[in-house]
Amino acid sequence: MGGGQKLVRAKGVTLWHQIQSVLEKELYEGAYPAGEKLPTEKQLADRFNVNRHTVRQALAELVRKELITVEQGRGAFARRDKLEYLLARRVRFRENLLRQSKVPSEELLESDVVSADSTCAKALCLRPTAAVVRLRSLGHADDHPLCCTTQFFPQERFPDFARIYAQTRSVTATFSVLGVSDYVRKSTRIMARVADSEEARLLKLGRNSPVMVVESVNVDSDGTPVEYGSCVWAADRIQFVVDAE
Amino acid sequence: MGGGQKLVRAKGVTLWHQIQSVLEKELYEGAYPAGEKLPTEKQLADRFNVNRHTVRQALAELVRKELITVEQGRGAFARRDKLEYLLARRVRFRENLLRQSKVPSEELLESDVVSADSTCAKALCLRPTAAVVRLRSLGHADDHPLCCTTQFFPQERFPDFARIYAQTRSVTATFSVLGVSDYVRKSTRIMARVADSEEARLLKLGRNSPVMVVESVNVDSDGTPVEYGSCVWAADRIQFVVDAE
Repeated sequence: MGGGQKLVRAKGVTLWHQIQSVLEKELYEGAYPAGEKLPTEKQLADRFNVNRHTVRQALAELVRKELITVEQGRGAFARRDKLEYLLARRVRFRENLLRQSKVPSEELLESDVVSADSTCAKALCLRPTAAVVRLRSLGHADDHPLCCTTQFFPQERFPDFARIYAQTRSVTATFSVLGVSDYVRKSTRIMARVADSEEARLLKLGRNSPVMVVESVNVDSDGTPVEYGSCVWAADRIQFVVDAE
Repeated sequence: MGGGQKLVRAKGVTLWHQIQSVLEKELYEGAYPAGEKLPTEKQLADRFNVNRHTVRQALAELVRKELITVEQGRGAFARRDKLEYLLARRVRFRENLLRQSKVPSEELLESDVVSADSTCAKALCLRPTAAVVRLRSLGHADDHPLCCTTQFFPQERFPDFARIYAQTRSVTATFSVLGVSDYVRKSTRIMARVADSEEARLLKLGRNSPVMVVESVNVDSDGTPVEYGSCVWAADRIQFVVDAE
Protein backbone atom coordinates (compact mmCIF):
# COMPACT_ATOMS: atom_id res chain seq x y z
CA MET A 1 0.00 0.00 0.00
CA GLY A 2 1.33 3.41 -0.95
CA GLY A 3 1.11 6.14 1.63
CA GLY A 4 -1.05 8.34 -0.57
CA GLN A 5 -3.14 11.21 0.73
CA LYS A 6 -6.60 10.07 1.82
CA LEU A 7 -9.50 11.67 0.00
CA VAL A 8 -12.81 11.68 1.79
CA ARG A 9 -15.10 9.80 -0.60
CA ALA A 10 -17.87 12.40 -0.61
CA LYS A 11 -21.11 10.97 -1.95
CA GLY A 12 -21.78 11.92 -5.58
CA VAL A 13 -18.43 13.66 -6.06
CA THR A 14 -16.07 11.82 -8.39
CA LEU A 15 -12.49 11.18 -7.36
CA TRP A 16 -10.96 13.33 -10.10
CA HIS A 17 -13.23 16.19 -9.13
CA GLN A 18 -12.00 16.00 -5.53
CA ILE A 19 -8.37 16.01 -6.67
CA GLN A 20 -9.09 18.97 -8.92
CA SER A 21 -10.61 20.84 -5.94
CA VAL A 22 -7.55 20.17 -3.74
CA LEU A 23 -5.16 21.36 -6.47
CA GLU A 24 -7.36 24.34 -7.30
CA LYS A 25 -7.26 25.44 -3.65
CA GLU A 26 -3.48 25.02 -3.57
CA LEU A 27 -3.10 27.06 -6.76
CA TYR A 28 -5.25 29.87 -5.35
CA GLU A 29 -3.23 29.79 -2.14
CA GLY A 30 -0.01 30.19 -4.12
CA ALA A 31 1.51 26.75 -3.50
CA TYR A 32 2.73 26.89 -7.12
CA PRO A 33 3.77 30.41 -8.20
CA ALA A 34 2.99 31.58 -11.75
CA GLY A 35 4.98 29.61 -14.32
CA GLU A 36 6.16 26.97 -11.84
CA LYS A 37 6.04 23.31 -12.79
CA LEU A 38 3.50 21.18 -10.95
CA PRO A 39 4.43 17.68 -9.74
CA THR A 40 4.35 15.04 -12.48
CA GLU A 41 1.28 12.88 -13.15
CA LYS A 42 3.12 9.98 -11.51
CA GLN A 43 3.87 12.04 -8.40
CA LEU A 44 0.27 13.24 -8.17
CA ALA A 45 -1.04 9.71 -8.69
CA ASP A 46 1.16 8.53 -5.80
CA ARG A 47 0.15 11.45 -3.61
CA PHE A 48 -3.59 10.85 -4.06
CA ASN A 49 -3.28 7.08 -4.35
CA VAL A 50 -5.14 6.98 -7.67
CA ASN A 51 -4.22 5.99 -11.21
CA ARG A 52 -2.78 8.45 -13.73
CA HIS A 53 -5.98 8.54 -15.76
CA THR A 54 -7.78 10.08 -12.76
CA VAL A 55 -4.97 12.61 -12.34
CA ARG A 56 -5.22 13.52 -16.02
CA GLN A 57 -8.97 14.16 -15.67
CA ALA A 58 -8.30 16.52 -12.74
CA LEU A 59 -5.56 18.35 -14.68
CA ALA A 60 -7.79 18.66 -17.78
CA GLU A 61 -10.41 20.47 -15.70
CA LEU A 62 -7.74 22.84 -14.32
CA VAL A 63 -6.69 23.57 -17.93
CA ARG A 64 -10.33 24.38 -18.81
CA LYS A 65 -10.47 26.70 -15.80
CA GLU A 66 -7.26 28.33 -17.07
CA LEU A 67 -5.45 27.71 -13.79
CA ILE A 68 -2.69 25.62 -15.37
CA THR A 69 -1.26 25.05 -18.82
CA VAL A 70 0.09 21.76 -20.12
CA GLU A 71 3.15 21.84 -22.38
CA GLN A 72 3.68 18.88 -24.67
CA GLY A 73 6.27 16.56 -23.15
CA ARG A 74 7.16 19.02 -20.39
CA GLY A 75 4.32 18.74 -17.90
CA ALA A 76 1.83 21.06 -16.20
CA PHE A 77 2.62 24.61 -15.12
CA ALA A 78 0.83 27.13 -12.92
CA ARG A 79 -0.66 29.72 -15.22
CA ARG A 80 1.17 32.96 -15.83
CA ASP A 81 -0.79 36.18 -16.18
CA LYS A 82 -1.67 36.85 -19.79
CA LEU A 83 0.29 39.63 -21.44
CA GLU A 84 -1.76 42.63 -22.47
CA TYR A 85 -1.21 43.44 -26.12
CA LEU A 86 -2.52 46.82 -27.22
CA LEU A 87 -3.86 46.85 -30.78
CA ALA A 88 -3.15 50.45 -31.71
CA ARG A 89 -2.08 52.10 -34.92
CA ARG A 90 1.60 52.48 -34.03
CA VAL A 91 2.20 50.15 -31.09
CA ARG A 92 4.18 47.13 -32.20
CA PHE A 93 5.58 43.91 -30.76
CA ARG A 94 8.64 45.39 -29.06
CA GLU A 95 6.81 48.35 -27.52
CA ASN A 96 3.98 46.13 -26.30
CA LEU A 97 6.37 43.82 -24.47
CA LEU A 98 8.59 46.55 -23.10
CA ARG A 99 5.53 48.35 -21.68
CA GLN A 100 5.08 45.29 -19.46
CA SER A 101 8.72 44.85 -18.55
CA LYS A 102 9.14 41.81 -20.76
CA VAL A 103 12.23 41.32 -22.90
CA PRO A 104 11.12 40.93 -26.53
CA SER A 105 13.11 38.90 -29.02
CA GLU A 106 12.38 37.69 -32.52
CA GLU A 107 14.01 34.66 -34.07
CA LEU A 108 14.02 34.54 -37.87
CA LEU A 109 12.95 31.05 -38.97
CA GLU A 110 12.92 31.49 -42.73
CA SER A 111 13.02 34.15 -45.43
CA ASP A 112 12.14 33.61 -49.08
CA VAL A 113 10.25 34.99 -52.07
CA VAL A 114 6.91 33.39 -52.95
CA SER A 115 3.84 34.01 -55.10
CA ALA A 116 1.12 35.87 -53.21
CA ASP A 117 -2.02 33.81 -52.62
CA SER A 118 -5.34 35.55 -53.22
CA THR A 119 -5.74 36.81 -49.62
CA CYS A 120 -2.22 38.23 -49.54
CA ALA A 121 -2.47 39.81 -53.02
CA LYS A 122 -5.77 41.43 -52.08
CA ALA A 123 -4.42 42.74 -48.77
CA LEU A 124 -1.36 44.27 -50.45
CA CYS A 125 -3.32 45.51 -53.51
CA LEU A 126 -1.09 43.46 -55.83
CA ARG A 127 -2.02 41.50 -58.92
CA PRO A 128 -2.73 37.82 -58.22
CA THR A 129 0.42 35.67 -57.81
CA ALA A 130 2.70 38.76 -57.63
CA ALA A 131 6.06 38.06 -55.95
CA VAL A 132 6.24 38.83 -52.25
CA VAL A 133 9.06 38.61 -49.73
CA ARG A 134 8.03 36.27 -46.91
CA LEU A 135 9.53 36.32 -43.42
CA ARG A 136 8.68 33.68 -40.83
CA SER A 137 9.74 34.34 -37.29
CA LEU A 138 9.11 33.25 -33.72
CA GLY A 139 8.50 35.94 -31.11
CA HIS A 140 9.54 35.46 -27.48
CA ALA A 141 8.82 37.28 -24.23
CA ASP A 142 11.54 36.69 -21.63
CA ASP A 143 12.68 33.59 -23.58
CA HIS A 144 9.18 32.06 -23.59
CA PRO A 145 7.71 31.49 -27.08
CA LEU A 146 4.69 33.71 -27.63
CA CYS A 147 3.82 33.87 -31.33
CA CYS A 148 4.72 32.61 -34.83
CA THR A 149 4.58 35.38 -37.39
CA THR A 150 4.44 35.26 -41.18
CA GLN A 151 4.89 38.64 -42.90
CA PHE A 152 4.66 39.51 -46.58
CA PHE A 153 6.16 42.54 -48.36
CA PRO A 154 5.76 43.53 -52.05
CA GLN A 155 8.93 42.32 -53.79
CA GLU A 156 8.69 44.76 -56.69
CA ARG A 157 8.68 47.77 -54.39
CA PHE A 158 11.18 46.36 -51.88
CA PRO A 159 13.55 44.04 -53.81
CA ASP A 160 16.25 44.42 -51.12
CA PHE A 161 13.96 43.80 -48.16
CA ALA A 162 15.31 40.39 -47.10
CA ARG A 163 18.96 41.45 -47.42
CA ILE A 164 18.52 44.57 -45.30
CA TYR A 165 16.33 42.77 -42.77
CA ALA A 166 19.07 40.16 -42.34
CA GLN A 167 21.33 43.00 -41.13
CA THR A 168 18.89 45.15 -39.14
CA ARG A 169 16.72 42.34 -37.76
CA SER A 170 13.91 44.88 -37.50
CA VAL A 171 11.02 45.51 -39.89
CA THR A 172 10.77 49.15 -38.79
CA ALA A 173 14.51 49.74 -39.38
CA THR A 174 14.34 47.97 -42.76
CA PHE A 175 11.43 50.13 -43.87
CA SER A 176 13.33 53.20 -42.73
CA VAL A 177 16.39 52.25 -44.85
CA LEU A 178 14.03 51.68 -47.80
CA GLY A 179 12.46 55.13 -47.47
CA VAL A 180 9.30 54.24 -45.52
CA SER A 181 9.79 56.43 -42.47
CA ASP A 182 6.35 55.78 -41.00
CA TYR A 183 3.73 53.07 -41.35
CA VAL A 184 0.53 52.36 -39.45
CA ARG A 185 -1.81 49.45 -38.80
CA LYS A 186 -4.81 49.92 -41.04
CA SER A 187 -6.97 46.91 -40.35
CA THR A 188 -6.83 43.97 -38.01
CA ARG A 189 -8.75 40.70 -38.01
CA ILE A 190 -8.77 38.45 -34.95
CA MET A 191 -9.76 34.79 -34.93
CA ALA A 192 -9.16 31.70 -32.82
CA ARG A 193 -8.73 28.02 -33.65
CA VAL A 194 -6.81 24.94 -32.48
CA ALA A 195 -3.02 24.99 -33.04
CA ASP A 196 -1.73 22.81 -35.85
CA SER A 197 1.15 20.46 -35.09
CA GLU A 198 3.92 22.82 -36.22
CA GLU A 199 2.53 25.74 -34.22
CA ALA A 200 2.16 23.47 -31.18
CA ARG A 201 5.82 22.45 -31.51
CA LEU A 202 7.13 26.01 -31.96
CA LEU A 203 4.98 27.48 -29.20
CA LYS A 204 5.39 24.48 -26.85
CA LEU A 205 1.66 23.91 -26.60
CA GLY A 206 -0.26 20.83 -25.53
CA ARG A 207 -2.66 18.94 -27.79
CA ASN A 208 -5.85 20.80 -28.74
CA SER A 209 -4.50 24.11 -27.40
CA PRO A 210 -6.25 27.19 -28.76
CA VAL A 211 -4.32 29.87 -30.62
CA MET A 212 -5.39 33.37 -31.58
CA VAL A 213 -4.69 34.44 -35.15
CA VAL A 214 -4.23 38.13 -35.85
CA GLU A 215 -4.09 39.25 -39.47
CA SER A 216 -3.15 42.84 -40.15
CA VAL A 217 -2.32 45.24 -42.95
CA ASN A 218 0.13 48.10 -42.49
CA VAL A 219 0.14 51.11 -44.82
CA ASP A 220 2.65 53.89 -45.50
CA SER A 221 1.88 57.60 -45.15
CA ASP A 222 0.19 57.58 -48.59
CA GLY A 223 -2.13 54.77 -47.47
CA THR A 224 -0.41 52.21 -49.73
CA PRO A 225 -0.14 48.74 -48.16
CA VAL A 226 3.49 47.85 -47.34
CA GLU A 227 3.02 44.75 -45.21
CA TYR A 228 0.49 41.99 -44.67
CA GLY A 229 1.05 39.73 -41.70
CA SER A 230 -0.54 36.79 -39.95
CA CYS A 231 0.52 36.15 -36.39
CA VAL A 232 -0.42 33.04 -34.40
CA TRP A 233 -0.41 33.54 -30.62
CA ALA A 234 -0.50 31.00 -27.80
CA ALA A 235 -3.95 31.85 -26.40
CA ASP A 236 -2.94 31.05 -22.81
CA ARG A 237 -0.28 33.78 -22.87
CA ILE A 238 -2.00 36.76 -24.46
CA GLN A 239 -4.99 39.10 -24.36
CA PHE A 240 -5.65 41.83 -26.90
CA VAL A 241 -6.87 45.25 -25.87
CA VAL A 242 -8.63 47.68 -28.20
CA ASP A 243 -9.15 51.11 -26.68
CA ALA A 244 -11.51 53.61 -28.20
CA GLU A 245 -9.52 56.63 -29.30
CA MET B 1 -16.07 -8.45 -46.59
CA GLY B 2 -17.69 -5.03 -46.89
CA GLY B 3 -17.70 -3.35 -50.27
CA GLY B 4 -15.76 -0.32 -49.01
CA GLN B 5 -13.90 2.09 -51.26
CA LYS B 6 -10.37 0.89 -51.98
CA LEU B 7 -7.58 3.18 -50.85
CA VAL B 8 -4.27 2.83 -52.61
CA ARG B 9 -1.85 2.03 -49.80
CA ALA B 10 0.71 4.66 -50.68
CA LYS B 11 4.03 3.97 -49.00
CA GLY B 12 4.67 6.08 -45.92
CA VAL B 13 1.21 7.69 -45.96
CA THR B 14 -1.02 6.57 -43.12
CA LEU B 15 -4.54 5.38 -43.80
CA TRP B 16 -6.24 8.21 -41.90
CA HIS B 17 -4.16 10.73 -43.80
CA GLN B 18 -5.36 9.30 -47.11
CA ILE B 19 -8.99 9.43 -45.97
CA GLN B 20 -8.48 13.01 -44.83
CA SER B 21 -7.09 13.89 -48.29
CA VAL B 22 -10.08 12.33 -50.07
CA LEU B 23 -12.57 14.19 -47.84
CA GLU B 24 -10.56 17.42 -48.11
CA LYS B 25 -10.73 17.23 -51.90
CA GLU B 26 -14.47 16.57 -51.75
CA LEU B 27 -14.99 19.52 -49.43
CA TYR B 28 -13.04 21.83 -51.72
CA GLU B 29 -15.03 20.59 -54.69
CA GLY B 30 -18.28 21.41 -52.88
CA ALA B 31 -19.55 17.87 -52.29
CA TYR B 32 -20.80 19.12 -48.90
CA PRO B 33 -22.08 22.70 -49.04
CA ALA B 34 -21.36 25.02 -46.09
CA GLY B 35 -23.24 23.89 -42.99
CA GLU B 36 -24.23 20.52 -44.44
CA LYS B 37 -23.87 17.38 -42.34
CA LEU B 38 -21.18 14.92 -43.41
CA PRO B 39 -21.87 11.17 -43.38
CA THR B 40 -21.63 9.59 -39.91
CA GLU B 41 -18.42 7.98 -38.62
CA LYS B 42 -20.05 4.60 -39.17
CA GLN B 43 -20.95 5.45 -42.78
CA LEU B 44 -17.42 6.75 -43.48
CA ALA B 45 -15.88 3.67 -41.84
CA ASP B 46 -18.00 1.46 -44.14
CA ARG B 47 -17.16 3.55 -47.19
CA PHE B 48 -13.41 3.38 -46.64
CA ASN B 49 -13.45 -0.08 -45.12
CA VAL B 50 -11.59 1.04 -41.98
CA ASN B 51 -12.49 1.22 -38.30
CA ARG B 52 -14.10 4.27 -36.70
CA HIS B 53 -10.91 5.24 -34.87
CA THR B 54 -9.21 5.81 -38.24
CA VAL B 55 -12.18 7.87 -39.43
CA ARG B 56 -11.99 9.96 -36.25
CA GLN B 57 -8.30 10.69 -36.87
CA ALA B 58 -9.12 11.90 -40.39
CA LEU B 59 -11.98 14.08 -39.12
CA ALA B 60 -9.80 15.55 -36.34
CA GLU B 61 -7.29 16.74 -38.95
CA LEU B 62 -10.10 18.35 -40.98
CA VAL B 63 -11.21 20.16 -37.79
CA ARG B 64 -7.63 21.44 -37.28
CA LYS B 65 -7.63 22.64 -40.89
CA GLU B 66 -10.94 24.39 -40.17
CA LEU B 67 -12.69 22.61 -43.03
CA ILE B 68 -15.32 21.00 -40.81
CA THR B 69 -16.73 21.49 -37.33
CA VAL B 70 -17.88 18.72 -35.01
CA GLU B 71 -20.94 19.34 -32.85
CA GLN B 72 -21.29 17.27 -29.70
CA GLY B 73 -23.72 14.41 -30.32
CA ARG B 74 -24.75 15.78 -33.71
CA GLY B 75 -21.89 14.87 -36.03
CA ALA B 76 -19.55 16.66 -38.43
CA PHE B 77 -20.55 19.60 -40.62
CA ALA B 78 -18.93 21.38 -43.56
CA ARG B 79 -17.62 24.67 -42.26
CA ARG B 80 -19.66 27.82 -42.69
CA ASP B 81 -17.91 31.08 -43.43
CA LYS B 82 -17.06 32.97 -40.27
CA LEU B 83 -19.20 36.00 -39.59
CA GLU B 84 -17.33 39.31 -39.60
CA TYR B 85 -17.96 41.21 -36.39
CA LEU B 86 -16.90 44.82 -36.45
CA LEU B 87 -15.60 46.09 -33.09
CA ALA B 88 -16.54 49.74 -33.36
CA ARG B 89 -17.76 52.26 -30.83
CA ARG B 90 -21.45 52.10 -31.77
CA VAL B 91 -21.86 48.92 -33.82
CA ARG B 92 -23.65 46.29 -31.77
CA PHE B 93 -24.83 42.71 -32.07
CA ARG B 94 -27.98 43.37 -34.12
CA GLU B 95 -26.31 45.79 -36.55
CA ASN B 96 -23.34 43.48 -37.03
CA LEU B 97 -25.55 40.55 -37.98
CA LEU B 98 -27.95 42.56 -40.14
CA ARG B 99 -24.97 43.99 -42.09
CA GLN B 100 -24.32 40.41 -43.21
CA SER B 101 -27.92 39.48 -43.92
CA LYS B 102 -28.16 37.29 -40.82
CA VAL B 103 -31.24 37.33 -38.62
CA PRO B 104 -30.12 38.18 -35.07
CA SER B 105 -32.02 36.94 -32.03
CA GLU B 106 -31.24 36.98 -28.34
CA GLU B 107 -32.68 34.50 -25.89
CA LEU B 108 -32.73 35.60 -22.24
CA LEU B 109 -31.45 32.74 -20.09
CA GLU B 110 -31.49 34.36 -16.67
CA SER B 111 -31.78 37.72 -14.97
CA ASP B 112 -30.89 38.42 -11.33
CA VAL B 113 -29.14 40.80 -8.95
CA VAL B 114 -25.71 39.78 -7.64
CA SER B 115 -22.69 41.26 -5.84
CA ALA B 116 -20.09 42.59 -8.26
CA ASP B 117 -16.83 40.65 -8.18
CA SER B 118 -13.63 42.69 -8.21
CA THR B 119 -13.26 42.76 -12.04
CA CYS B 120 -16.86 43.85 -12.53
CA ALA B 121 -16.76 46.48 -9.74
CA LYS B 122 -13.57 47.93 -11.18
CA ALA B 123 -14.95 48.01 -14.73
CA LEU B 124 -18.13 49.80 -13.61
CA CYS B 125 -16.28 52.08 -11.13
CA LEU B 126 -18.39 50.74 -8.24
CA ARG B 127 -17.38 49.92 -4.68
CA PRO B 128 -16.42 46.26 -4.19
CA THR B 129 -19.42 43.92 -3.84
CA ALA B 130 -21.90 46.62 -4.99
CA ALA B 131 -25.18 45.21 -6.30
CA VAL B 132 -25.38 44.74 -10.08
CA VAL B 133 -28.16 43.55 -12.36
CA ARG B 134 -26.96 40.51 -14.30
CA LEU B 135 -28.43 39.34 -17.59
CA ARG B 136 -27.39 36.08 -19.20
CA SER B 137 -28.44 35.51 -22.78
CA LEU B 138 -27.72 33.37 -25.80
CA GLY B 139 -27.25 35.10 -29.16
CA HIS B 140 -28.21 33.42 -32.43
CA ALA B 141 -27.60 34.15 -36.10
CA ASP B 142 -30.26 32.59 -38.34
CA ASP B 143 -31.21 30.22 -35.49
CA HIS B 144 -27.62 28.97 -35.03
CA PRO B 145 -26.15 29.67 -31.56
CA LEU B 146 -23.27 32.13 -31.78
CA CYS B 147 -22.44 33.52 -28.33
CA CYS B 148 -23.30 33.40 -24.61
CA THR B 149 -23.35 36.86 -23.06
CA THR B 150 -23.26 37.96 -19.43
CA GLN B 151 -23.93 41.66 -18.88
CA PHE B 152 -23.78 43.68 -15.67
CA PHE B 153 -25.49 47.03 -14.95
CA PRO B 154 -25.20 49.16 -11.78
CA GLN B 155 -28.30 48.35 -9.70
CA GLU B 156 -28.25 51.62 -7.73
CA ARG B 157 -28.42 53.73 -10.89
CA PHE B 158 -30.78 51.42 -12.79
CA PRO B 159 -33.00 49.71 -10.17
CA ASP B 160 -35.71 49.02 -12.79
CA PHE B 161 -33.37 47.64 -15.44
CA ALA B 162 -34.48 43.99 -15.33
CA ARG B 163 -38.20 44.86 -15.31
CA ILE B 164 -37.94 47.18 -18.32
CA TYR B 165 -35.62 44.80 -20.18
CA ALA B 166 -38.18 42.01 -19.72
CA GLN B 167 -40.60 44.16 -21.73
CA THR B 168 -38.28 45.73 -24.34
CA ARG B 169 -35.91 42.75 -24.80
CA SER B 170 -33.28 45.26 -25.87
CA VAL B 171 -30.46 46.81 -23.84
CA THR B 172 -30.45 49.92 -26.06
CA ALA B 173 -34.21 50.41 -25.65
CA THR B 174 -33.96 49.83 -21.87
CA PHE B 175 -31.20 52.41 -21.55
CA SER B 176 -33.29 54.82 -23.59
CA VAL B 177 -36.30 54.41 -21.24
CA LEU B 178 -33.92 54.96 -18.29
CA GLY B 179 -32.59 58.23 -19.73
CA VAL B 180 -29.35 56.96 -21.34
CA SER B 181 -29.96 58.02 -24.92
CA ASP B 182 -26.47 57.16 -26.14
CA TYR B 183 -23.67 54.88 -25.00
CA VAL B 184 -20.41 53.81 -26.63
CA ARG B 185 -17.91 50.98 -26.32
CA LYS B 186 -14.95 52.34 -24.37
CA SER B 187 -12.59 49.40 -24.09
CA THR B 188 -12.53 45.87 -25.38
CA ARG B 189 -10.41 42.90 -24.35
CA ILE B 190 -10.21 39.79 -26.52
CA MET B 191 -9.00 36.40 -25.39
CA ALA B 192 -9.38 32.75 -26.38
CA ARG B 193 -9.58 29.53 -24.40
CA VAL B 194 -11.29 26.13 -24.50
CA ALA B 195 -15.08 26.12 -23.94
CA ASP B 196 -16.26 24.88 -20.56
CA SER B 197 -18.97 22.22 -20.50
CA GLU B 198 -21.91 24.64 -20.14
CA GLU B 199 -20.67 26.84 -22.99
CA ALA B 200 -20.14 23.75 -25.16
CA ARG B 201 -23.72 22.68 -24.47
CA LEU B 202 -25.26 26.10 -25.17
CA LEU B 203 -23.17 26.74 -28.30
CA LYS B 204 -23.37 23.10 -29.53
CA LEU B 205 -19.60 22.73 -29.63
CA GLY B 206 -17.49 19.59 -29.68
CA ARG B 207 -14.98 18.69 -26.96
CA ASN B 208 -11.93 20.95 -26.72
CA SER B 209 -13.48 23.56 -29.01
CA PRO B 210 -11.95 27.02 -28.73
CA VAL B 211 -14.06 30.03 -27.81
CA MET B 212 -13.22 33.71 -28.02
CA VAL B 213 -14.03 35.83 -24.99
CA VAL B 214 -14.72 39.52 -25.51
CA GLU B 215 -14.97 41.72 -22.43
CA SER B 216 -16.15 45.27 -22.92
CA VAL B 217 -17.16 48.39 -21.03
CA ASN B 218 -19.78 50.79 -22.36
CA VAL B 219 -20.00 54.36 -21.11
CA ASP B 220 -22.69 57.04 -21.33
CA SER B 221 -22.15 60.49 -22.87
CA ASP B 222 -20.49 61.67 -19.60
CA GLY B 223 -18.00 58.81 -19.80
CA THR B 224 -19.56 57.01 -16.82
CA PRO B 225 -19.60 53.21 -17.21
CA VAL B 226 -23.15 51.89 -17.64
CA GLU B 227 -22.48 48.30 -18.68
CA TYR B 228 -19.78 45.67 -18.32
CA GLY B 229 -20.15 42.56 -20.41
CA SER B 230 -18.38 39.32 -21.15
CA CYS B 231 -19.33 37.50 -24.30
CA VAL B 232 -18.19 33.98 -25.20
CA TRP B 233 -18.19 33.26 -28.94
CA ALA B 234 -17.92 29.94 -30.81
CA ALA B 235 -14.52 30.51 -32.46
CA ASP B 236 -15.44 28.56 -35.57
CA ARG B 237 -18.27 30.97 -36.37
CA ILE B 238 -16.75 34.41 -35.84
CA GLN B 239 -13.91 36.78 -36.70
CA PHE B 240 -13.45 40.21 -35.19
CA VAL B 241 -12.43 43.19 -37.27
CA VAL B 242 -10.85 46.33 -35.85
CA ASP B 243 -10.55 49.11 -38.41
CA ALA B 244 -8.37 52.11 -37.78
CA GLU B 245 -10.60 55.19 -37.72
